[in-house]
Amino acid sequence: MEKSDIGHHISQQYNEELEDLRNRVLAMGGMVEKQIADAVEALAEGDVELADHVITSDYEVNAMEVSIDEECTLILARRQPAASDLRLIVAVIKTITDLERIGDQAEKVAHMALRLANAERPKNNYHEILNMGRHVKEMLHSALDAFARLDIDAAVQVAHEDIIVDNQYEAIMRQRITHMMEDPRSIARSLDVMWSARALERIGDHSRNISEYVIYLVRGKDVRHISLKKMEEAVKQD
Amino acid sequence: MEKSDIGHHISQQYNEELEDLRNRVLAMGGMVEKQIADAVEALAEGDVELADHVITSDYEVNAMEVSIDEECTLILARRQPAASDLRLIVAVIKTITDLERIGDQAEKVAHMALRLANAERPKNNYHEILNMGRHVKEMLHSALDAFARLDIDAAVQVAHEDIIVDNQYEAIMRQRITHMMEDPRSIARSLDVMWSARALERIGDHSRNISEYVIYLVRGKDVRHISLKKMEEAVKQD
Repeated sequence: MEKSDIGHHISQQYNEELEDLRNRVLAMGGMVEKQIADAVEALAEGDVELADHVITSDYEVNAMEVSIDEECTLILARRQPAASDLRLIVAVIKTITDLERIGDQAEKVAHMALRLANAERPKNNYHEILNMGRHVKEMLHSALDAFARLDIDAAVQVAHEDIIVDNQYEAIMRQRITHMMEDPRSIARSLDVMWSARALERIGDHSRNISEYVIYLVRGKDVRHISLKKMEEAVKQD
Repeated sequence: MEKSDIGHHISQQYNEELEDLRNRVLAMGGMVEKQIADAVEALAEGDVELADHVITSDYEVNAMEVSIDEECTLILARRQPAASDLRLIVAVIKTITDLERIGDQAEKVAHMALRLANAERPKNNYHEILNMGRHVKEMLHSALDAFARLDIDAAVQVAHEDIIVDNQYEAIMRQRITHMMEDPRSIARSLDVMWSARALERIGDHSRNISEYVIYLVRGKDVRHISLKKMEEAVKQD
């Protein structure tokens, strides 16, 4: 129902431009999802080649950000969008910034993967990082899905997930600090695990940001910087 | 000279709206600069009250972001800006996102200040953090100055400074890792110092982002994701 509000114009070409814009954001999102999955797998498997691939392909994500940004500015200048179309453009400008920064975080994890590949491997093969990585990748996927389907309930769900990720992160940090104190020889390795967890936690934050733009796009309400409860109230109101 | 390009309209009121927008970004920037200075001072002096103040006043920065964002959308809808006016709006939308995230980083430093206030203080009173904090605050100030004066040379200078900050950061990290290995009892405190340094390094990155938007605003060129050398070339060309 909401979807039909967005995308009805006299100009067929304008419609296609907006549709194309949405598709390119989703394509960029898919690329970034893959970066996360690859970076985390590279770390868990000690796969140097895969880590290198994540690092060298970061430029593709950057290029997409620049190109989508240009398209937004062109549409703003030519079509002078109003109402929900304008909100779409603003949401896209913000979303791709977060996507690009997720790519940066994935690249950081890939760098840690390279360093850890040469270190002694723990028995659990960095299971906690693999788990957290899967979780934030799911979060990003859900946020992009919510964007594609203009699904504000799914967007709110992403905000819920972010709290779980924050708790996972805190648990990893506590565990690692204990480990470092018990075995100072593990300090360098533990720090790399901590930086990786931190990067994944940031990916959760960026995914939450994206879901907030979906709510702005659909409801016209800015739900940043408010509690989850208030966000749910804002979504319920019509 | 460049300044005169931006801001000449038949409508005096439109002119005033854009001028007001610029001023509000600078006001938000000034607020965030103060957050950095206070957070770093709180850490260096062990000043719990000042750290609390930074944390509780973060909502003001957030509120400014939301309000400036609304103003941008209103101007886009009502005035349908073109050319350099449109670039100004896009640059502002991006700049305030970075400013808000700088505020978040300052808040993180303030949290570290609270924790470190109860820990044994090092002889140098966290001199390295104080130094790095002053440096990134200067960077932000220069980036905002470049925005106010549309000064692209100053903007390029900020990108140069970011490299120096990255080196400061690496030096602090190396020093802390050595310290942790030598004295495992210092691990918790060292980690707090490392997180603080990381937050300041991120502030350097955000300030560089802001200076890149200034170049986009003045030159219409997207200079993100390129080397400093290419950035300088892009700025030189007319």
